[in-house]
Amino acid sequence: MGLMSEAFSQTLIPVCALIGILFALVQWFLVSRIRVASSGPDSYEDQLIEEDDEQVEGIDSAEVVNKKCAEIQNAISVGATSFLFTEYKYLGIFMFVFGVIIFIFLGSVKGFSTKSEPCTYNEGNLCKPALANAIFSTIAFWLGSLTSVLSGFLGMKIATFANARTTLEARKGIGKAFITAFRSGAVMGFLLAANGLLVLYVSINLFKLYYEDDWEGLYESITGYGLGGSSMALFGRVGGGIYTKAADVGADLVGKVEKNIPEDDPRNPAVIADNVGDNVGDIAGMGSDLFGSYAESSCAALFVASISSFGIHHDYAAMSYPLIISSVGIIVCLITTVIATDVVEIKTVSEIEPSLKRQLLISTVLMTVGIAGVSFLVLPSKFTLFDFGADKVVKNWHLFFCVSIGLWAGLVIGYVTEYYTSNAYSPVQDVADSCRTGAATNVIFGLALGYKSVIIPIFAIAIAIYVSFSLAAMYGIAMSALGMLSTIATGLAIDAYGPISDNAGGIAEMAGMSHRIRERTDALDAAGNTTAAIGKATSHLWLSNPGSSSEGVLLGFAIGSAALVSLALFGAYVSRAGIKTVDVLTPKVFIGLIVGAMLPYWFSAMTMKSVGSAALKMVEEVRRQFDTMPGLIEGTRKPDYATCVKISTDASLKEMIPPGALVMLTPLIAGTLFGVETLAGLLAGSLVSGVQVAISASNTGGAWDNAKKYIEAGASEHARTLGPKGSDAHKAAVIGDTVGDPLKDTSGPSLNILIKLMAVESLVFAPFFASHGGLLFKYL
Amino acid sequence: MGLMSEAFSQTLIPVCALIGILFALVQWFLVSRIRVASSGPDSYEDQLIEEDDEQVEGIDSAEVVNKKCAEIQNAISVGATSFLFTEYKYLGIFMFVFGVIIFIFLGSVKGFSTKSEPCTYNEGNLCKPALANAIFSTIAFWLGSLTSVLSGFLGMKIATFANARTTLEARKGIGKAFITAFRSGAVMGFLLAANGLLVLYVSINLFKLYYEDDWEGLYESITGYGLGGSSMALFGRVGGGIYTKAADVGADLVGKVEKNIPEDDPRNPAVIADNVGDNVGDIAGMGSDLFGSYAESSCAALFVASISSFGIHHDYAAMSYPLIISSVGIIVCLITTVIATDVVEIKTVSEIEPSLKRQLLISTVLMTVGIAGVSFLVLPSKFTLFDFGADKVVKNWHLFFCVSIGLWAGLVIGYVTEYYTSNAYSPVQDVADSCRTGAATNVIFGLALGYKSVIIPIFAIAIAIYVSFSLAAMYGIAMSALGMLSTIATGLAIDAYGPISDNAGGIAEMAGMSHRIRERTDALDAAGNTTAAIGKATSHLWLSNPGSSSEGVLLGFAIGSAALVSLALFGAYVSRAGIKTVDVLTPKVFIGLIVGAMLPYWFSAMTMKSVGSAALKMVEEVRRQFDTMPGLIEGTRKPDYATCVKISTDASLKEMIPPGALVMLTPLIAGTLFGVETLAGLLAGSLVSGVQVAISASNTGGAWDNAKKYIEAGASEHARTLGPKGSDAHKAAVIGDTVGDPLKDTSGPSLNILIKLMAVESLVFAPFFASHGGLLFKYL
Repeated sequence: MGLMSEAFSQTLIPVCALIGILFALVQWFLVSRIRVASSGPDSYEDQLIEEDDEQVEGIDSAEVVNKKCAEIQNAISVGATSFLFTEYKYLGIFMFVFGVIIFIFLGSVKGFSTKSEPCTYNEGNLCKPALANAIFSTIAFWLGSLTSVLSGFLGMKIATFANARTTLEARKGIGKAFITAFRSGAVMGFLLAANGLLVLYVSINLFKLYYEDDWEGLYESITGYGLGGSSMALFGRVGGGIYTKAADVGADLVGKVEKNIPEDDPRNPAVIADNVGDNVGDIAGMGSDLFGSYAESSCAALFVASISSFGIHHDYAAMSYPLIISSVGIIVCLITTVIATDVVEIKTVSEIEPSLKRQLLISTVLMTVGIAGVSFLVLPSKFTLFDFGADKVVKNWHLFFCVSIGLWAGLVIGYVTEYYTSNAYSPVQDVADSCRTGAATNVIFGLALGYKSVIIPIFAIAIAIYVSFSLAAMYGIAMSALGMLSTIATGLAIDAYGPISDNAGGIAEMAGMSHRIRERTDALDAAGNTTAAIGKATSHLWLSNPGSSSEGVLLGFAIGSAALVSLALFGAYVSRAGIKTVDVLTPKVFIGLIVGAMLPYWFSAMTMKSVGSAALKMVEEVRRQFDTMPGLIEGTRKPDYATCVKISTDASLKEMIPPGALVMLTPLIAGTLFGVETLAGLLAGSLVSGVQVAISASNTGGAWDNAKKYIEAGASEHARTLGPKGSDAHKAAVIGDTVGDPLKDTSGPSLNILIKLMAVESLVFAPFFASHGGLLFKYL
Repeated sequence: MGLMSEAFSQTLIPVCALIGILFALVQWFLVSRIRVASSGPDSYEDQLIEEDDEQVEGIDSAEVVNKKCAEIQNAISVGATSFLFTEYKYLGIFMFVFGVIIFIFLGSVKGFSTKSEPCTYNEGNLCKPALANAIFSTIAFWLGSLTSVLSGFLGMKIATFANARTTLEARKGIGKAFITAFRSGAVMGFLLAANGLLVLYVSINLFKLYYEDDWEGLYESITGYGLGGSSMALFGRVGGGIYTKAADVGADLVGKVEKNIPEDDPRNPAVIADNVGDNVGDIAGMGSDLFGSYAESSCAALFVASISSFGIHHDYAAMSYPLIISSVGIIVCLITTVIATDVVEIKTVSEIEPSLKRQLLISTVLMTVGIAGVSFLVLPSKFTLFDFGADKVVKNWHLFFCVSIGLWAGLVIGYVTEYYTSNAYSPVQDVADSCRTGAATNVIFGLALGYKSVIIPIFAIAIAIYVSFSLAAMYGIAMSALGMLSTIATGLAIDAYGPISDNAGGIAEMAGMSHRIRERTDALDAAGNTTAAIGKATSHLWLSNPGSSSEGVLLGFAIGSAALVSLALFGAYVSRAGIKTVDVLTPKVFIGLIVGAMLPYWFSAMTMKSVGSAALKMVEEVRRQFDTMPGLIEGTRKPDYATCVKISTDASLKEMIPPGALVMLTPLIAGTLFGVETLAGLLAGSLVSGVQVAISASNTGGAWDNAKKYIEAGASEHARTLGPKGSDAHKAAVIGDTVGDPLKDTSGPSLNILIKLMAVESLVFAPFFASHGGLLFKYL
């Protein structure tokens, strides 16, 4: 037994979770003190493009600016909320139906019998009937789904609450704007991490009331929580990704390329849809995604622990090791955030990126100490783990290494991602340089960069896997994944900061562009109390793009952790399905492997085509409005934003179904028709192939985005030779950026859900496949 | 024992090979009867851009045309020969060094002992010493290398011999031009197939003089032949691919995009380099590649057979089954070719594509009959195969299914490739349509198309693997691969037809574009005896692009067969390394799997970046020439072709080394440091991931190429709304085509060599890794 008592660990987890929630609320309160004018929900469109005579001076009063920002923010918030509610209506139906499927499949394992069964691992004891597991898995699935939806929704709410406030704070200087955006990101990060932990903790304790000593059944059904979290995340990512990129690509292709108007110009009919998209895609989608990773790695670790000595000997404190690691992670992130917001002050734009990077490092160092503490206090000095049928003797410091290596591998991946996608380094600068010879070389260089950026992360993941696998089998992998995710609150804060400041820039542009005397802008003081100054300050904030590269960093985390999580889930699945080896040299496994490696391509084909088709529709609509509505380009008439919002909404809801079905149905079909071995091959194949496609797609997209911004910002001698905006090289860069949009915001990020989700789904359905699967081979 | 005697099979193989060679010579003779004016090697440049006054009429006499064509052909041939000789100089050094490495590694397995050893599989008998195997493996490696180089070189010679002849024949109509190009392709196809078979047959019989009854050692050392073939193919593909695409991309970016001059315009300084590239990349590279596949699958099949009952019982006829299948394949292809050239007559352009497709079908059907015959005559009705330590009882009709399913899977892959890359079908037309909204949507749609095109081929490969693996273990896989390659002569004829007619079109353009009254072209009769008419006829031939789509078809074959071949080699490697299972659930194997899946990305990053950088240099040179050489764009002064040729040559020779080293060194490093299990995982990972990247890259590139041609040709109502040349949609299509160039001609095709080559190299070095490998884990 470890040094920590059951009672203490039982208290520690909820207390840490509540501290996290409290901290988030404090941050929210701090952000909310920035006053934004209240506005009616319907008035924004009338205000956005104002009458000529009001703007002769080109300088609006502070009051008018505040009101405008409030109205734009309100429009974005209303749009995002309405889309998410529509999406959730569909997801509600899916949740219900899939819950029933889980119940029927798992219930049928023992023919819906209500009799208790002898336990599989805890020999000699009686476990609860399979029917109970079916019911509780379904409940856990629904709980996970609801928590995931809640995470995404809260994230979106906070982001749309914060963006205009960031714009307004930018009047007072970069430091204030940064703090506002970052605090808002922190609200999301902490709410999500704490919330996920708390719901999981409460569920386990409630389920325990029924399961009592049957920990096998308890933690088997808890895996439904991970499945629920991840399946919602899939639809959130895919739906949100299609929404945002259809709008973005459509807006850019006509606005920037054809009409030569800036990004986020209010004359562009797709501008509201584009900004709504940032919130439903990047924020809500990423929130659900990382919650899913977190829930799944916790479930995988708990499941493996439950069939190891912790579970068999009912050592509750040791059993809670994964949850305690996450609890300590919340405290570590809290300290990191306080340092970022209250100790260090940001004064210039160039300090932002190093500050974000420093936070990653600080949280990683502190967390390493935390892991050491937890490992020695909670774990017995020696214990046995389930290792595919055999027992593996493990020491507590082994686990320290497993968790830490995941954590540090995450840092490496984050930094590498930043190196390849930030325009402060040569890779992106080379891509920008290749724009000299046109869009084709830009695309070639960008693709090559994405491929190259895979190398180091894969070695980092491979080392993490080798060490933790060797030291503590599948439990080690799961804990390594949790280690990578233990600083999730800080990661999410950094991530959410990106889209929030992007949106803030958009709002500034929209508010500032309503008058036509922009030439004066440059002459005005950046701290001056004018819309133009806001535009300048926030678009600096936005052009310096720490936002984009921070998104990239977190995406790296998300993919890296997904790889580890999937492997842990895969291991848990194999254990639960009763497979002893997954031998590549058997035909059943090999065909699974090669088909599994193909799935990420199939999935990407669907999502990219969806974005492409939806963007084409958007382009036609935007062109139509510019062609048929006189006065639009002159800014004397407001565009019809609603139609563009509707195109994005309809496209995303319709188009998310086929890729969603591919991911959700493949394990069911493979397991039922081809059996557990083929499914095992399939999971391994999709894991090793998907992680490469995901990393390269995301980084290629990120690099193009920042190559474009590099040229636009013109911050160096080299960048100025390529620019300015509108030059041939810049046009080539815009094409690359547009191609990258679906890669980095739709296909890439969805793929890490694909690999996790198929694995967790297989784990949940494993008892069914093991008893009734492989129909095709049985009858052939 | 089967029904066929040893003597009969000993006669059949060389006779079929000689018939193939004879047939190739006859075709060559028929092509050579087309008279081309002889020209000095140095005069072409002076003739290419002529004086104004000669061309007032815009119609040159037949004599002048003939001479011009001869000169251009000569220039291309000289350029290609000189590049290949330079390349071969480097490869010669590599061959020598690597041969020595093979000798040292394999010799050291038993410490260079000259004592005979007890056999591994043929228990109770004595086998030759490991040192002998080292020596003979090295010799086999050199033989394979030489045959591969010879195959590539002969192919190039024939292609450059035929291209101007095709141009000249186009004066007499499409049918004549088609026959000329196709016959020339056939020369290459038959020479290569027959040559590969003959050298292998002779080598086996010579080696047998020493090995006598030790068939284990004999066929073990013969695998060096496959390694030699494939490693030359790698450098041929990569070097040739970089050469051709640097020139092509560079020529297009300045010529077509900036200067608005047509493809293959003699004013473009990179035009000769571009045409040379087609011959050294597409022809010589593809020739070496398919020879490599053929040699490797034969070696894999022979190796597995030698440790099965055929080898142990010394059943020579059954042992020769793989070679007899290939022999019959030559005869089947011969019949198919005769039907194509002498029975059916092509009258219009639209008949070409169906005719090529029909040939694939005819050869497949005939070959199925041939396989049935061979299987029943050569194989005993029942025999045992080595199945990773166990014995597997197999019947002769099982083998019939294995070979046939490979053959038919190849047909499916070929047809699917054609469907996704030919502009006769909706996928490419959709891509063309997306050019309406610019280059970005074109690139997005093209990438999505490539991803999607992976689905059916992977299922076809998976089914072939499952069936042949289940029926006859690794022997089944190897035979399935040989089945897919059994119609290689027809496949190569169809493939070589593409670049030859492309080149013919280029020559016509170069010869015809020297006068500036091209407007008259359309008024001239296509059968008229004028350069303009030649231009018209051959550019039709070229624009209708059966060439490009036929290349795609063969590339599909090459990749599909590479997947099967690699798996067979992988199986042989596992047997030879003495591994019993390759269990994904061991850390050693899993890290191999995930790193292996990353290698295709690393490799692609290198090759694409190489093409990109070389193309940038080419662009700068071409721009420099246009800017600093007055009279160039007006056509009154000849460009400096030689500098462009030098840029391509230097770039390809320098840049082929890093990717080559990656492929050649990875198995050596992985095997020596991490051991046989990690290497097994690595091979499986690179196989399942590489095949996806290869197919999607090739098809994306092919689709962009044909989408552009679709717009240019304007053959349908839809196509005309997108065109004509120079429209915005066309410009977008050109960008896509340029991006696709390195994908379809450098990265994609090289990847199938990557997966085969790493597998065959592992097989050759397996005894060393098994006895001395895994140093890192031993000392950790």
